[in-house]
Amino acid sequence: MLTLYYAPGTCALASLIALEESGLAFEVRKISLRDGEQRSPDYLKINPKGRVPALVTDYGVLTETPAILTYIAQSAPAAKLAPLDDAFEFARLQSFNSYICSTVHVNHAHRPRGSRWADEPAAIEAMKAKVPQNMADCFTLIEQTMFKGPWVMGEAYSLADPYLFVMTDWLPSDGVDPARFEKASDHHARMLLRPAVQRALAYDRA
Amino acid sequence: MLTLYYAPGTCALASLIALEESGLAFEVRKISLRDGEQRSPDYLKINPKGRVPALVTDYGVLTETPAILTYIAQSAPAAKLAPLDDAFEFARLQSFNSYICSTVHVNHAHRPRGSRWADEPAAIEAMKAKVPQNMADCFTLIEQTMFKGPWVMGEAYSLADPYLFVMTDWLPSDGVDPARFEKASDHHARMLLRPAVQRALAYDRA
Repeated sequence: MLTLYYAPGTCALASLIALEESGLAFEVRKISLRDGEQRSPDYLKINPKGRVPALVTDYGVLTETPAILTYIAQSAPAAKLAPLDDAFEFARLQSFNSYICSTVHVNHAHRPRGSRWADEPAAIEAMKAKVPQNMADCFTLIEQTMFKGPWVMGEAYSLADPYLFVMTDWLPSDGVDPARFEKASDHHARMLLRPAVQRALAYDRA
Repeated sequence: MLTLYYAPGTCALASLIALEESGLAFEVRKISLRDGEQRSPDYLKINPKGRVPALVTDYGVLTETPAILTYIAQSAPAAKLAPLDDAFEFARLQSFNSYICSTVHVNHAHRPRGSRWADEPAAIEAMKAKVPQNMADCFTLIEQTMFKGPWVMGEAYSLADPYLFVMTDWLPSDGVDPARFEKASDHHARMLLRPAVQRALAYDRA
């Protein structure tokens, strides 16, 4: 059994969509960031980072979205969620997901979580001010150099798609009009048609 | 043939060590960040992100350290640089490398590259001021919850090791005394004894 520790409105949505796509048996446990449950002693025993997502497996706990996505894809080969038999294509998927976690998500985080990187209120405000430009720059680069279409990796849907979906979903809150990014907007709309995405969003917003 | 685009003093060192460990045929091309070569039209054709590392393969270009490390490990299975036959252990390696790229490297980058996230000089100074604490917090978490010993993943050396090595190597410049972190310091010293690391450092510092 797999158990996903989840918080609404976070990048854990990518892992939840992946589980919904995979056909694997899983359960989800919601924790409230607003109530600080990610810092509770019980949760820190599961994920000492105090973050979501965390995936509890029969072998131990996994954290970090790219690792969880890869594990889900490898655990459900019949669902064909990653190019598992082609080392280069597999690396290309890792590259995309690494870019999301190390650059796009990080740029986004400077809006709600600037206090991670500076203490002064003026510095935190200065970070917020730069978020729209940084997020727009990321999506320009994604559309021009990474997104193959119709899905991120090309013809085949993969676990790059739910991760991009979450980032696109955040654009309005980051002060970026998603309509500026035609490929990402179209991708987001097509993701919303997938039953797995609909089930994940229903859980997220319940 | 593999060609690694490299800049001294960057995280590309992890990929260079990995190539040296792998036994694969490769060449390295050094570019000068000081001279802005990462922004030259020729280099942007290779890596539109304008960053290093970039690994040119027979199938295309790969960027992002975790993806390059995984590709090297999968391309040289005899070198046993990753637990390729165990999905959970493989995901644990991905998790560690994701944490490095999304959190440790990002925290470090707020010292030399704060202008990515704010324009005001005072904000950039405020970010610099927080780097020692953030890097120390990361290494505390690594030592307490991730580093199994004697190598990052346990008994087996893996491509988590060169990546951690680079981060430890940066600690003095980030205002952190590496001696505070016994496991990471010991790991760093043992890495320096490996011929692959010595060859990579000789190239880095030539």
